[in-house]
Amino acid sequence: MAPVGGTPKPPKKGILERLDSGEIVIGDGGFVIALEKRGYVKAGPWTPEAAVEHPEAVRQLHREFLRAGSNVLQTFTFYASEDKLENRGNYVSDKISGQKVNEAACDIAQEVSQEGDALVAGGVSQTPSYLSCKDKAEVKAIFQKQLEVFVKKNVDFLIAEYFEHVEEASWAVEVLKESGKPVAVSLCIGPEGDMHGIPPGECAVQLVKAGASIVGVNCHFDPETCLKTVKLMKEGLQAAKLKAHLMSQPLAFHTPDCGKQGFIDLPEFPFGLEPRILTRWDVQKYAREAYNLGIRYIGGCCGFEPYHIRAIAEELAPERGFLPEASEKHGSWGSGLSMHTKPWVRARARKEYWENLLPASGRPYCPSMSKPDAWGVTKGAAELMQQKEATTEQQLKELFEKQKFKSSMVA
Amino acid sequence: MAPVGGTPKPPKKGILERLDSGEIVIGDGGFVIALEKRGYVKAGPWTPEAAVEHPEAVRQLHREFLRAGSNVLQTFTFYASEDKLENRGNYVSDKISGQKVNEAACDIAQEVSQEGDALVAGGVSQTPSYLSCKDKAEVKAIFQKQLEVFVKKNVDFLIAEYFEHVEEASWAVEVLKESGKPVAVSLCIGPEGDMHGIPPGECAVQLVKAGASIVGVNCHFDPETCLKTVKLMKEGLQAAKLKAHLMSQPLAFHTPDCGKQGFIDLPEFPFGLEPRILTRWDVQKYAREAYNLGIRYIGGCCGFEPYHIRAIAEELAPERGFLPEASEKHGSWGSGLSMHTKPWVRARARKEYWENLLPASGRPYCPSMSKPDAWGVTKGAAELMQQKEATTEQQLKELFEKQKFKSSMVA
Amino acid sequence: MAPVGGTPKPPKKGILERLDSGEIVIGDGGFVIALEKRGYVKAGPWTPEAAVEHPEAVRQLHREFLRAGSNVLQTFTFYASEDKLENRGNYVSDKISGQKVNEAACDIAQEVSQEGDALVAGGVSQTPSYLSCKDKAEVKAIFQKQLEVFVKKNVDFLIAEYFEHVEEASWAVEVLKESGKPVAVSLCIGPEGDMHGIPPGECAVQLVKAGASIVGVNCHFDPETCLKTVKLMKEGLQAAKLKAHLMSQPLAFHTPDCGKQGFIDLPEFPFGLEPRILTRWDVQKYAREAYNLGIRYIGGCCGFEPYHIRAIAEELAPERGFLPEASEKHGSWGSGLSMHTKPWVRARARKEYWENLLPASGRPYCPSMSKPDAWGVTKGAAELMQQKEATTEQQLKELFEKQKFKSSMVA
Amino acid sequence: MAPVGGTPKPPKKGILERLDSGEIVIGDGGFVIALEKRGYVKAGPWTPEAAVEHPEAVRQLHREFLRAGSNVLQTFTFYASEDKLENRGNYVSDKISGQKVNEAACDIAQEVSQEGDALVAGGVSQTPSYLSCKDKAEVKAIFQKQLEVFVKKNVDFLIAEYFEHVEEASWAVEVLKESGKPVAVSLCIGPEGDMHGIPPGECAVQLVKAGASIVGVNCHFDPETCLKTVKLMKEGLQAAKLKAHLMSQPLAFHTPDCGKQGFIDLPEFPFGLEPRILTRWDVQKYAREAYNLGIRYIGGCCGFEPYHIRAIAEELAPERGFLPEASEKHGSWGSGLSMHTKPWVRARARKEYWENLLPASGRPYCPSMSKPDAWGVTKGAAELMQQKEATTEQQLKELFEKQKFKSSMVA
Repeated sequence: MAPVGGTPKPPKKGILERLDSGEIVIGDGGFVIALEKRGYVKAGPWTPEAAVEHPEAVRQLHREFLRAGSNVLQTFTFYASEDKLENRGNYVSDKISGQKVNEAACDIAQEVSQEGDALVAGGVSQTPSYLSCKDKAEVKAIFQKQLEVFVKKNVDFLIAEYFEHVEEASWAVEVLKESGKPVAVSLCIGPEGDMHGIPPGECAVQLVKAGASIVGVNCHFDPETCLKTVKLMKEGLQAAKLKAHLMSQPLAFHTPDCGKQGFIDLPEFPFGLEPRILTRWDVQKYAREAYNLGIRYIGGCCGFEPYHIRAIAEELAPERGFLPEASEKHGSWGSGLSMHTKPWVRARARKEYWENLLPASGRPYCPSMSKPDAWGVTKGAAELMQQKEATTEQQLKELFEKQKFKSSMVA
Repeated sequence: MAPVGGTPKPPKKGILERLDSGEIVIGDGGFVIALEKRGYVKAGPWTPEAAVEHPEAVRQLHREFLRAGSNVLQTFTFYASEDKLENRGNYVSDKISGQKVNEAACDIAQEVSQEGDALVAGGVSQTPSYLSCKDKAEVKAIFQKQLEVFVKKNVDFLIAEYFEHVEEASWAVEVLKESGKPVAVSLCIGPEGDMHGIPPGECAVQLVKAGASIVGVNCHFDPETCLKTVKLMKEGLQAAKLKAHLMSQPLAFHTPDCGKQGFIDLPEFPFGLEPRILTRWDVQKYAREAYNLGIRYIGGCCGFEPYHIRAIAEELAPERGFLPEASEKHGSWGSGLSMHTKPWVRARARKEYWENLLPASGRPYCPSMSKPDAWGVTKGAAELMQQKEATTEQQLKELFEKQKFKSSMVA
Repeated sequence: MAPVGGTPKPPKKGILERLDSGEIVIGDGGFVIALEKRGYVKAGPWTPEAAVEHPEAVRQLHREFLRAGSNVLQTFTFYASEDKLENRGNYVSDKISGQKVNEAACDIAQEVSQEGDALVAGGVSQTPSYLSCKDKAEVKAIFQKQLEVFVKKNVDFLIAEYFEHVEEASWAVEVLKESGKPVAVSLCIGPEGDMHGIPPGECAVQLVKAGASIVGVNCHFDPETCLKTVKLMKEGLQAAKLKAHLMSQPLAFHTPDCGKQGFIDLPEFPFGLEPRILTRWDVQKYAREAYNLGIRYIGGCCGFEPYHIRAIAEELAPERGFLPEASEKHGSWGSGLSMHTKPWVRARARKEYWENLLPASGRPYCPSMSKPDAWGVTKGAAELMQQKEATTEQQLKELFEKQKFKSSMVA
Repeated sequence: MAPVGGTPKPPKKGILERLDSGEIVIGDGGFVIALEKRGYVKAGPWTPEAAVEHPEAVRQLHREFLRAGSNVLQTFTFYASEDKLENRGNYVSDKISGQKVNEAACDIAQEVSQEGDALVAGGVSQTPSYLSCKDKAEVKAIFQKQLEVFVKKNVDFLIAEYFEHVEEASWAVEVLKESGKPVAVSLCIGPEGDMHGIPPGECAVQLVKAGASIVGVNCHFDPETCLKTVKLMKEGLQAAKLKAHLMSQPLAFHTPDCGKQGFIDLPEFPFGLEPRILTRWDVQKYAREAYNLGIRYIGGCCGFEPYHIRAIAEELAPERGFLPEASEKHGSWGSGLSMHTKPWVRARARKEYWENLLPASGRPYCPSMSKPDAWGVTKGAAELMQQKEATTEQQLKELFEKQKFKSSMVA
């Protein structure tokens, strides 16, 4: 019998059901960067305690992505592992336990997901423990702890994302897979492969063998670079005769000048990236190319604001047959400008105009590309060992000196 | 007698009380651009019906500015005049009356203002009626209607902003002044003066004579250009031996290549402005220069996100003696990066680094400056006549043709 | 009686005869920069002893300008004053007297001028003596010495060029005027006026009153800026009801970012100016605008190579009715490309293509504009006092320190 | 017996003698581009009839390169084959036979070579006949004809340069080798290989097997790209256990945005390349890197002016033990500026300053990179078939249309 007050919503189609049937699934955008700009996340530690401290802010951002067309709401649990919440002087766990952060994030995502057709994905990401050479059991235990919350809250599926080393990502997939829920995994690597030099194709094969149903990349590089990497993953899987769905969640920043380690190395990271932000038209181009490459889980990462996600949904509206809710407030290809007061702005109300625009930076004293930092250290290097305590003044001084030295070598 | 349940808050100091005593008052940022990116405002008409349709989104943005340090919350009533809500096919009033929009906006701003030390300012802006050569009485009647709501809701003070013609701004000031509340006024003009060629100094004199206690500029130009204009206003007032407080609320976009009419004329307006967005360090520089120039009402306009407002508050923290709430999640001058995992990012945790950074655009195929449209029309020109009905296909076609012709002349 | 072997050439029309009849006179280009690149002039002192040391190189450059369309060959006597030949360790006069340099330069120019329809102009330029505050008589004596050679060699007319102070230029004009030959004079100033702040219009008036028949600007700024300055001169002369012909000989470098003192202050001067070099199409645009402004003596200065001069002659060929000799090797507006092997290069053989091209720098790590040095010193400042002896190591060190200090203030 | 009047000069060391003993050999620069700017070569056909028409101009340029440090003077015989002199309406041979051009070029180079320690190299380059699919015998006959002049004039050695297809280059080497003189060969290819897709390493092997003693690349790409290509050649030779000397003669233009076919494809070729011109400091960097890579024949191609060649000689002066003649007029690393009048220019008299300068373009409306034309046609394609007759208007129109179509696809 139907409950009083209305027809019950039909149960949502699962993530694999959608992808298997050829549907396009639109991911969401970048929470830590967006919430940093809104005043709720601290650049540096980048941890998600706002889920507990300011749930209304997290809720509002989820809602905006949903309106913009997202079919997946990732729980705001990026860097919500215990070892990250207590790293380098970021004493979050002293006030709020990791468990509480993860639970609050699940609650918020699930609440908002009821407002539309979106699934909730519980997410884990790379750990300081791995970088600091803790062993497999220790690292897995960290993921296990987050997974317990996701299982208890019964999220729809799981994502292991933002891994620089396929080895750690595989461990994460193995842990998540035990839940019986579908597992997606994305590395933050470029065409050169992971930080140990393992090529994208081989990474994809390892991850599928570890149990992932969806593989791809997120963060660290711009759409163009990410798509190159996913293409290599696709080829690797084909060569190994393995099947998996593909996903991409790139930066909303142009990074043609990145090295192997992505935008972290650019001198502008994280407080000077503004001139690199993608326009909505850049995103439409990305969405089309991702689709043409066979990717069906298409979203964004750092820098992706709600209007960027809407641009994916608008570009693929012909294939999907519908526009997202937020397109009520957006004319496709600038057509809303036909309502502008000034005639020369109304004259911009057309696709041809925006498609061909080469936007100026207004910064004639700035270059168009930068030389990335290239300190050449990765997992295991002494400089990457993490600590619970705050970085000391002395440690900082040594880094400043090293930075000056490296810069003068680049010039 | 104290009400049950707690000590009553002391009444807030009024805007003139603060400015007269030498306090710095921090304004808020740009609502229409921020809410457009969040999916709640339509580019083209730019009208604020979201106050009724999605109050939670407007409330959240107010709250973020408050946390970032704003001492003033402007009601989200930009372009909320009846003639604008019904312009060129934007049939908002058919669903929601202008009165309702203005009321809802007041309610939201007043609710959030209780969460901190902020005043609420009711705002009016330029009208299509003036551009279409309606007479003084008709234009004043439009402001009068909005004012009635502000008086009923008892906002703390009033702002007439975004006027291209000092004549219309003076009419607005005259109307608002009748309420007995303090009136601030800002023009969206550059150093060349208003659209009728009246120099900034003379504009300021007219506005103070009309009754404004605070005068300045907002929108249309970047901080550097706006400060030049306010400087000219200051000099004009000094020459006329008039006293007024100064305010500036510039764009958060670099616009060194603007013509007389500001960023509206740039080919990137409004969907390709990303590469021009100010960094927080650009804003700190602006805040310092505004302060040095004697401006004490310092805020932002289009493009200003909460973190930009926080940058004003952080730059002027030594003078004010405190940091805003949102600085809990921000280390001054990048110091939060000392908690970053990567050593070369920790090495960026210092003022000298960010102060000297020349951020790259990542767009080597784009120029650094653009040629603005310069159609050379203003109030009274046939092309600026407005209409209630949607722009027709034929009207658009004529504009596209004219645009092509103008572009080929610039090249 | 006619000489054996041929008809005597008719005597050439004088410079004023040409200009008075409305003819366009094309100047020549920049000797010191061109010969520096060819290996015959030393950057720093920039003195013209090559006229004696390597006459074949000077002769060849004169010949190239003549073929390109120059109607005037300036004697290569820039900085050929005795006090300049012996400045700061440039011990030229120890080997070659100033008189010899000036004589050799006259001989070469006169020899080449016989190969076409060109006049020879003897040239003087600003002196270290003036900068070092020597008195009027001393400075005039220096010009007098050069003039004696020009009179003896019987050049066609005289040019005083590259003066930053109108006072010194007026002294030069007074001296040259005594010869009875027509005198042209050009300042290396921008729209802000001379180094003492005298506006261009007033400068022009002073110079005409001192005896000049042709006034204008040369060097220090790009064509756009120079034309602005000449326009101000023209307006000054009109206001004073004075008549004179106008001349312009700008840089072949784009310098929109110059300060008051011109390209000398740009950090790229003199060894990094390459990205600023004008294309031939830039020069055609300049020639057209100069013509439209009423300038009839149109040439170039530093950076102008023979092909730049040819571009002036080609642009104004419709008005003049003929092309220069060197156009035998140049199809107008790229039409010669119709002979190229590759089809896509043949497709560039048209005006529309080259007129609209926005040429890329191929330097994505470089900015498009620079902050000029602005040490704010001019005639009379201790730092501008000259000396015969080489700059010492200690003096250089002090300058390096000062430069670092100034740079860090700009950043 | 010694001739009256002096000791006879000792015979010069041959090219292989020099290279075998480890000497650095400095090549010369780009004749066609330099002489185009001086007014003696026509862009489009780019043929060298100036050797006959204006020997003084060619002689002067040779002399300048010699003074700048060149140890090799290449005869000005680029594109001096009969089939090129009569291509697409360039009816040179109607007036001057190919033989005469080649003879005159040899005479001039040999005359100037007597003024210093330079060898004369006779040069051949790729032919329209090969592009138009003529057979091996026909193509070889063309080289044979030029070789006859070189043998008669007894040049010191031979260079086959500017070949896009290694097959044609090998034919040229085979022909030249018959003379018994040493043969150098350079392809105008990048790291992707020749126009048939043959990788640089394999190209080098084929050329050495065909008889070349010196192999490398010239033209089409900037120094950075050329050095990458030569590195691949070196590795190919090592893998094949073959020995040869390496040479590089890159462009003096920055071309990071080139496609496979080099700067010909850039929209700026050939009349808008100015912003890409290398500074002398760029050249010093190139010379050092070439030396470090083991290249010992180091020169330049299009865009290399005498001062660029001098920069090679100055950079490698420590290794060679001497400076070129033209350094009399150049202080190393800007030290001549210590003689400048202005103190802030004297402050630039040091290596650190110029080494770190990032020169601005002064063109804020231009991008830093361009999209190359990519019509994807090469030898054998109908569009590359050559003809003796001028390109018709109809042929040009078809190309213009195609260009517009291609451009709109890139945007």
